[in-house]
Order: sequence, then C-alpha cells, then structure tokens
Amino acid sequence: MHRVKVRVVEDALDANNTIARANRADFDRHGVTVVNLMSAPGSGKTTLLERALSHWHDGPRVGVLEGDVAGSLDADRLAHHHVPVVQLNTDNGFGGECHLDANMVRSAMDALPLDEIDMLIIENVGNLVCPAEFRVGEDARIMVSSVAEGADKPLKYPLMFRACELVVINKIDLIEHVDFDMDTFLYHLDAVHPGVTSLPVSARTGEGVDAVRSWLAALPDRVRAVA
Amino acid sequence: MHRVKVRVVEDALDANNTIARANRADFDRHGVTVVNLMSAPGSGKTTLLERALSHWHDGPRVGVLEGDVAGSLDADRLAHHHVPVVQLNTDNGFGGECHLDANMVRSAMDALPLDEIDMLIIENVGNLVCPAEFRVGEDARIMVSSVAEGADKPLKYPLMFRACELVVINKIDLIEHVDFDMDTFLYHLDAVHPGVTSLPVSARTGEGVDAVRSWLAALPDRVRAVA
Repeated sequence: MHRVKVRVVEDALDANNTIARANRADFDRHGVTVVNLMSAPGSGKTTLLERALSHWHDGPRVGVLEGDVAGSLDADRLAHHHVPVVQLNTDNGFGGECHLDANMVRSAMDALPLDEIDMLIIENVGNLVCPAEFRVGEDARIMVSSVAEGADKPLKYPLMFRACELVVINKIDLIEHVDFDMDTFLYHLDAVHPGVTSLPVSARTGEGVDAVRSWLAALPDRVRAVA
Repeated sequence: MHRVKVRVVEDALDANNTIARANRADFDRHGVTVVNLMSAPGSGKTTLLERALSHWHDGPRVGVLEGDVAGSLDADRLAHHHVPVVQLNTDNGFGGECHLDANMVRSAMDALPLDEIDMLIIENVGNLVCPAEFRVGEDARIMVSSVAEGADKPLKYPLMFRACELVVINKIDLIEHVDFDMDTFLYHLDAVHPGVTSLPVSARTGEGVDAVRSWLAALPDRVRAVA
C-alpha cells in the first residue's frame, strides 16, 4: 500500500490565511496592489483618504473598500470624490465583527471593479486589536494613530504597530492642545517595530499628506520589486 | 420512567452570562457596586478616572480593575492616586482579546479587595465593538467618547452607545480645534439610545468632572432602589 503522509501545517491550513491567499491571487491576476488601512475609531482614516485622493494625479487608479459595523457614512463621503467605493458592513450575517477578515473581503470581490483600478485601499473597522490578526490578501498595511489618542498607544497595542509597513501620525494640528510628546511616541514605536516608516500628518489641514500620497503612489513598484 | 424535559434557553446557558451572574452574586455579597467603563483607545478613560478619583471625598470607597492587551501603564497611573488597582492583561492566556469578558474578570476576583471597597470600576480594553457584547457582572456601564473621534460615532458603533447608562463626551477642551458638532452628536446619540444621560467633560482641564463624580457617587443608591 502506498502511503502518503500529509503533515498538517497549522498556519498554512488556517482558514483565514487560505482565503487571504485566494484573494491575493485574484488581486494579482488583475494587477491590483492592495492596502489594508487600520486605526482606532475616529483616528481619521476616512479624512486622510479624502484628502489624499482629492489631489490624486498621475498615480495609480484607486478604489476603496469601506469596512464598517453599520452604516455607509464613510463610503458616502468618499463617493463625493469620484472614487469607486464598495461598502462592506459587518453587522449583517457576520454578527457585528470588530474587524474585516479574508472571507468578508472575498464576499465583496464580485462588487469590486478590479479591471478599472490599480490599487485597492481597504478601510478596516476602527479597532486597535483584531484587524492585525486577520490578513485579507493585502500587500501592505498602514496604521493611523492620532495624537489625540496619546503617545502610549504603541506600547498598549503592540501588534497593530508591528504588523504594518507605515505608521501615519495624524491630527498633528492638535499637538499643541493635547498632552502628546512626539519623541515619546517615536521611542515607543521604535521599541515595538524598529525602523518602521512613520509620517506626521494633519489630514484636516493637509499638512504632510503629500508624503502619504507619494508613499502610496510608489507602493506598486515597491511590491513588484520584492516579488 | 419519569421524564424530565430540559429546555435549553440559549441566553440563560450562554457561558459568559452564566459567569457574569456568578460575578454579580459575589459583588452583591460584598456590597460592591460595579461599573464597566468602555471607550475607543485613547478616549481618555484613565485620565477621567485619575481626575475623578483625585478629588474623591465622602463617596464610596473605589477600587479599579484595569483591562489592557499589554502593559500596566494605566494601572501605574492610577496607583499614584492611592486607589487599589488590579491589572488584567488579555494577551497572556487569553490570546490578545479585544475586550474583557466575565471569565477574565472572574480570574481577577481573588485579587480584588472586595471587603475594602464599595465600588469597583472596571476599565475595559479600548474598543468600540466587542465590549458591549460581553457583560462582566456590572451594575452600570459608562461609555466615553472623545470629541476628537467625531460626531458620527453613535451611528457607526450603535451597540456601544446603546448598551450603557451614561455617555461621557470627553475632551471638550478640544472642541474649537476639531470638526465636532455637539448638536449632531446628540442627535445621533438620541437616535440610537433615546433619553440616555450624557455629560460633556474635559478630563484634562477638569471641566464637568464634578458631574461624573456625582453620578458615580449616587450610583449605589440608584442600583439599590431598582433592586
């Protein structure tokens, strides 16, 4: 009798990762670079996107997948900027999930205009714990942290700050009005994720948003160079 | 043969609720009123507690149970105010949970000085989704929302604003520097939780904190009146 030994590799057979890889294959086939945008609630992900995409010239054609527990407030805001937006709510059928997972993103796949875009930005549910644990098929992750949240956040939510390629420090227009020490934040950030790129930004005033735009515009080439 | 029909009532046998009731019974036996303090990350729960407890006279004797994914930054801050604090981390053994549940609180029960306090304030993990789904044996829930997070939060995270007895609107010292319209926030709040008490506060400057202190101090009597 011929015996085949199948070794169960936990991570490889993990359902979420399996589906994330299927998503990844679909995105690759359409030449779409995918960004997972993560933050706490109210850190300014949507305002950052509005600001970045409202002066978006020559860069990759961008589409957005909006993840929210309920409502379509953010999708409506982005649609005003003539960006193709698909809304994904986690409260129907998913039981009010606090994060997006690969299967939720998969369920939106048919609604995404993958042939008309070069980059998909997935705005995750506002949460500083679980989104980091669920890959959805993305090429890169951006973590947005607002100065209003305090300089201790990298220490309190280390996985989120570790599982990303870029940290956007948002709402720097508030820095004089809150107890936020940038050096302390960067010191904590370096402790949990040495060497990660960070960009100080005010999505509200536009300060620093050019650098985020450039980072995004260069991402497809960076991803291809690594592949 | 004598047959006993056992009807499985889903909610009654739900493990979390069963343990929450056991916690509740233990708290009652010690005459301790319990508050579950919830918010997004960085909304100012700890600063609010520091401020409220630093001028705490004649009120119930308060202890704090600090829930965090990692570290003991908040517990250390509160210990400075001579408040008995127990730290509960969710990253060891619990797998990096994004909320406290009844069993986690139960695991801290022996460490709590229940005979020396009249009120236990449980500071939940910063998260606007899951904490609302897990009762831990509390008498009341306080939801803290900062003006820096935006006026749309009640609509985007309705369960959190619905599953509470008090909404603290924090960081009102920032109101001139952010795009936050109080009437819009209160309109949305009323839509998801009609009639809930809300208190505008600046934990940083102390404005409005007296009202939170009074609310807390009156809570044991209110709870007893209902029971």
